[in-house]
Parts: sequence; C-alpha cells; structure tokens
Amino acid sequence: MLVDSKSWRTIWLQEDNRSIGIIDQTKLPYEFSTCILRTWCDVADAIRNMKVRGAPLIGVTGAFGLMLALQEDSSDESLERAKLVINSTRPTAINLGWALERVSRKVESVDPRLRFEVARTEACLIAEEDVKMCQKIGDFGLGIFEDLILSNPLKGKEEPINVLTHCNAGWLATVDWGTALSPIYKAHRSGLNIHVWVDETRPRNQGASLTTFELGSEGIAHTLIVDNAGGYLMQKGEVDMVIVGTDRTTRSGDVCNKIGTYLKALAARDNGIPFYVALPISTIDFSLEYNEIPIEIRSEKEVNSMKGVKISETGDMHLLDVRIAPEGTKSFNPGFDITPSKLITKFITDRGLLYPNEIEFIFSK
Amino acid sequence: MLVDSKSWRTIWLQEDNRSIGIIDQTKLPYEFSTCILRTWCDVADAIRNMKVRGAPLIGVTGAFGLMLALQEDSSDESLERAKLVINSTRPTAINLGWALERVSRKVESVDPRLRFEVARTEACLIAEEDVKMCQKIGDFGLGIFEDLILSNPLKGKEEPINVLTHCNAGWLATVDWGTALSPIYKAHRSGLNIHVWVDETRPRNQGASLTTFELGSEGIAHTLIVDNAGGYLMQKGEVDMVIVGTDRTTRSGDVCNKIGTYLKALAARDNGIPFYVALPISTIDFSLEYNEIPIEIRSEKEVNSMKGVKISETGDMHLLDVRIAPEGTKSFNPGFDITPSKLITKFITDRGLLYPNEIEFIFSK
Repeated sequence: MLVDSKSWRTIWLQEDNRSIGIIDQTKLPYEFSTCILRTWCDVADAIRNMKVRGAPLIGVTGAFGLMLALQEDSSDESLERAKLVINSTRPTAINLGWALERVSRKVESVDPRLRFEVARTEACLIAEEDVKMCQKIGDFGLGIFEDLILSNPLKGKEEPINVLTHCNAGWLATVDWGTALSPIYKAHRSGLNIHVWVDETRPRNQGASLTTFELGSEGIAHTLIVDNAGGYLMQKGEVDMVIVGTDRTTRSGDVCNKIGTYLKALAARDNGIPFYVALPISTIDFSLEYNEIPIEIRSEKEVNSMKGVKISETGDMHLLDVRIAPEGTKSFNPGFDITPSKLITKFITDRGLLYPNEIEFIFSK
Repeated sequence: MLVDSKSWRTIWLQEDNRSIGIIDQTKLPYEFSTCILRTWCDVADAIRNMKVRGAPLIGVTGAFGLMLALQEDSSDESLERAKLVINSTRPTAINLGWALERVSRKVESVDPRLRFEVARTEACLIAEEDVKMCQKIGDFGLGIFEDLILSNPLKGKEEPINVLTHCNAGWLATVDWGTALSPIYKAHRSGLNIHVWVDETRPRNQGASLTTFELGSEGIAHTLIVDNAGGYLMQKGEVDMVIVGTDRTTRSGDVCNKIGTYLKALAARDNGIPFYVALPISTIDFSLEYNEIPIEIRSEKEVNSMKGVKISETGDMHLLDVRIAPEGTKSFNPGFDITPSKLITKFITDRGLLYPNEIEFIFSK
C-alpha cells in the first residue's frame, strides 16, 4: 500500500535475488525506514525484535529465512538448524511453523545445489498467495459496504461510512492489503467516502501507532480514540460497522483476537451494529473448541509503562518508555480475549462472507 | 485514609484556623506532598490546576475558598467576586456551585464582622457531611460483600473477593473514604480478604495513578489492568462484582460516568456478574432523562499523548508527556459514557441499596 505516495510491501526480494528487504516496523510511526536481511540470522533477529510482526508476515519472513540459510549452506543440517532457530523466535505465531514446514518439505527431496532456488521460488509463492488472499478478503468485504449503501444512498457519498477497528490487522501485519483493513482499502480506492475510528489498543498501542500510520499514508480519513470510547460512539450512532481481525478462530466460530475485541462486540450487539471478523479460511483452527483456546499472558511492563516519543528542546526525537503507575504496582496482561460466535454478524474470508455457523459446515466437508 | 501508615484527609483546616491544607494531587502517584492555601486566589488556582479534583472535593475546597475570601475582606463585593471566580474554575462540577451557594446564603444576612467565622463553620460542616455520607455508602456496600459470603463461605477468607473498578471514585475524589472504593475500605478494615482489579482508565489514567496509590497506601491487594482486559477477566470467572462511581445519574437510573464504564457493564451482564454504582443520593439529577445528559468532549492531546515518569541515569524522576501516534493524528475524546439502568444491579447510596427503578420512587416522594 501507499507510503509517501509510493507503493510498498512489508517484505520483498531485493533486485540481487539474494537478499530480502523489509520495513523496520519497530520505528513506526515515528520513522519510516527499511533494512536488508542477508543471512538467516538476520531473519531470526528481525522476527525476534519485532522488526516484522503480524502472523502472516512472520510466516513469509521465516520462509525467506530458509532461503537465506540454504544460500549460505545447502546441507540438511543447515536447513534443520535454521528451521529450529527461526521457529523458536515467536513460538505462538501459527503461520511461522506452517511456512517453515512448507519450504522445508519442498526442498528436502531436492539436490542441495538446487535447494536455494527452490526455496526462493516457494517463499515468493507464499508471499504472493498471501497478497492474493488479502485482496480477496478485501473484494468480498467491499460487498458489505455496497449493501449498506443500498439501504442509505447518502452513505459513502455525502456521509462517510464509519468503521470502527481494533488493533492492527492491516497490510503491515501481512505482505500487503491486510485482513480487517483490506475491505476499507478496497472501498476507499473504489471511491467510497470512508472514515475509520481507530482504537488505540492498549497496552501495545498498535492502533495508535500502526493503524493510524497505514490509514494516513493511504489518505483515508480516520480518528484515534481510546479503547474506552467505542461504546459511546456506538450509542451515539457514529459507528456503521465494526471490522476486526483474528489470531485464532475455532470451528464453532469463536474468535480469539487482541484483548478488548470482546468488549466492542458486546457494544455492537447492544446497539444493533454489525460486527465483522476478517480472516483467511486457512487460519481457522478446526481442532479447537471455545474453551480450549490458549491465551498468552504477556509482560507486566507493557501495562505499567507506555512507549512514545518526546521531542527535545533541540528538536531531536527520543523514543522512550514512561512509567504510569506507582513503583512496584502489580499488573496483569492477557494478550487476547475470546469473542463468542453469537456476537459475530459475519466472517469476511477469502472464500466469501460466512455466517459463524457456516464455519463448521466447511469443516465437515 | 492511610498514606505511609498515617491517616489523611484530602483537605483540612490548618491549626491556625485561618488557612487550608490540601494534598497536591498533581504529583500523585509519584510524589506525596501537601500544600497550604492562604487566600481565595490560592483556592481558585488549586481547583483550576487540579491540585484538588473529584466533584465532592472540589465543592468542599470552594466552600473553604469563600471562608478565605471573607477573612481578607468580608464585604458583599468580596464575597460575590470570590464566588464568581471560583465557580468559573471548573464549570461542569455540579458540587462546586452548590457548595458556594450554600456558604454564600449562610453568610449573606450575617454582620460582615462575623462572616468569616460563619463561613468557616459552614465549610467544615460541608466537609464533615461529605465524610459521613461516604462512610454510609461504605457501610451499606459492606452488606453486598456479606451477602456474597453467605453463598460462598470461602470467599473473603481463603479466597479473595475480586472487585473490578473503573477510574477513581476513592477518597482522593472526596474528603475521605470515597464512593465506589468506600465499601472496599470498609470490607478490608472488617478483615475480609479483598482483591481489586484496577482499570487504568485511559486517557487520563486515574486508575493507574490514583486508585493504585489509594489501595496500595491502605494495604489492599490490587492488580492494574488495561481497560481492554476486564471482559477477559469476567469470562474467566476472575471478577465477583464491579463497583464504579458516577458523575451524574438520571431519575430513570441511567448513569453518566467515566468513558468506558458502559463497556464493563455490558461485559458484567454477559457474564452474570453484579454491577454496582456507588453514589450519594444528593448527586442524582432528577431533572434529567437518559438522552439529555450532556457529555463533555475533552482535549485531543489527552489521547495522542500519555503522561508518565522517566527515571534519568542519575536517578532523577522526570514527569513528562510522550506522543504515541503519528504527528498530526486527529483524535476524539469524549469524557463520559452512559450506562443504561438495565445494566445496573443496584445503587449503593448513603440511604441504602436501591434498585434502579427505586430512584424514580424516591423522586416521586
């Protein structure tokens, strides 16, 4: 998508066909910079230090990591070592293990002299598939906006369509387009008048830092709000729909997404506002039931402090953490909550719009 | 309540009987310091700069302001001028106008030579009444804990009673005891095992800074959470009840309180958890219906930035604001939302526990 009017992806094969370029997301939104990954260790570091983040993007980056490992040393040992180390960088991201396995299986039976090129082709294919999947989500999601306009012809023209989103499920979490934001990008590019309410998404503030950056760069009207404000806006009729992403979805259509998603789903239901979850079908975990979803408990520090920038008197920008609670305050930091399927209007998938109870139907086929 | 094992109020008449002591709340929770107000201008500044905050405390402070004005100059003109200026410092706090009017009416017909002492007596009376009212809320609220124990005898002993609260409706917002926190203090002092989940309460973080400070100083177990986390905790059975305060309550029992309260009330209902609102009966606005409550829209800066402390290499503590969104990001900052009475289990008032529909009944009497 656009940054400074130029089209970008989050990850790409450099022109030399031997190294990988990425956007360094740790510096966003304060600085837009890229860096080059030349070895599989660079890749492991980039994932570990969250220069790349978002489950789909982590998967693609891991795949390119194996390509770099095989470029250096195409032996079975090299492959196994790189796979093991890269997989351990972010153990909870389901796409990472999947992508590493896919590249690994593809090269295993291949002559070591050809492995580098086979891995490169496969990694590029995974990246392209991700882009296409996100685009399809966008295209199907666009239909929701078109339906809304049918019932109110002013919407999308004189009156903006107001979408509320939580966290960042945009192109920065994928290779391009994103999941929850993809329908918004498609709608905007098709000329519709769109406005997005962006939840800041404490404690890590992915909404305040990344979603605002994405939407601003693409020229889409948006307003940042604290996570507490969404219910008020829905009460006041200022939200036409909610669209969020999902980290893990069960066969019964329950959604594990960034902490706070559930509260917005409750408010949407109480105010008769449709609540959509965007996802690729491939990320549904058909093995899980509602009460089996594991929830990651994260560091207390994320709650007790806040990251931001301070501009010094000389105009220099300093990125720093400030403590916001009395010293020694105990805190608790669950990373996700579960939105039960009863609160979800529809899923926006790469295979079309689905009611929650249709997920199980796909599974049974 | 306790700070460093010593009993404090938020405001007091100094021993000289001619000046007022307050806790400087702008420095909390990083520093506990007091200051002395000697003139009515000191009082106006203290309210304006939020050294004192919380509607009940602002009212009491204003009353003492008139006492100081009359000490300096006991004329009608002096009284009117002080009343006008002090009242304009925080125009939305309903208690301020009420307290100023009460002192003013009391001294108007009195010989100017006696006015200072009459005002002093009245201001002290208002402060004492506030303390008694909050204590009564605490005593009635204690009954809720006792009822809970009846159904689960382990609760409050081996197992803590888990209370979730939003924002700060503690003693720092009143003269002593507080409203929502008063039942918690009473329960703790009566020997019950209590644990409080403290919502940080973005954007101004009164939970993270003030409620944690209050509970920690009183020795009550508590855990800070982001505003997004309450729903998850309720889903997991980690919350026995929610208690919040209220800024304004309508005759139909709808509650206007800090932004985000409504989302917690929805989650409580969805999980079958009782949701209580603590308030003095005197703060119910019998003239208002649900849709007539005015909502204050506050500065964008509170959303785009965050206040906290940074410890320098030399160990010095610096209180500073950091920006958390891209430069120029538009934001929207409603200060309150409305929790409809259907979501409220009971009101904890200084006249006992009331069902929402009983408010109208009191009104009709």
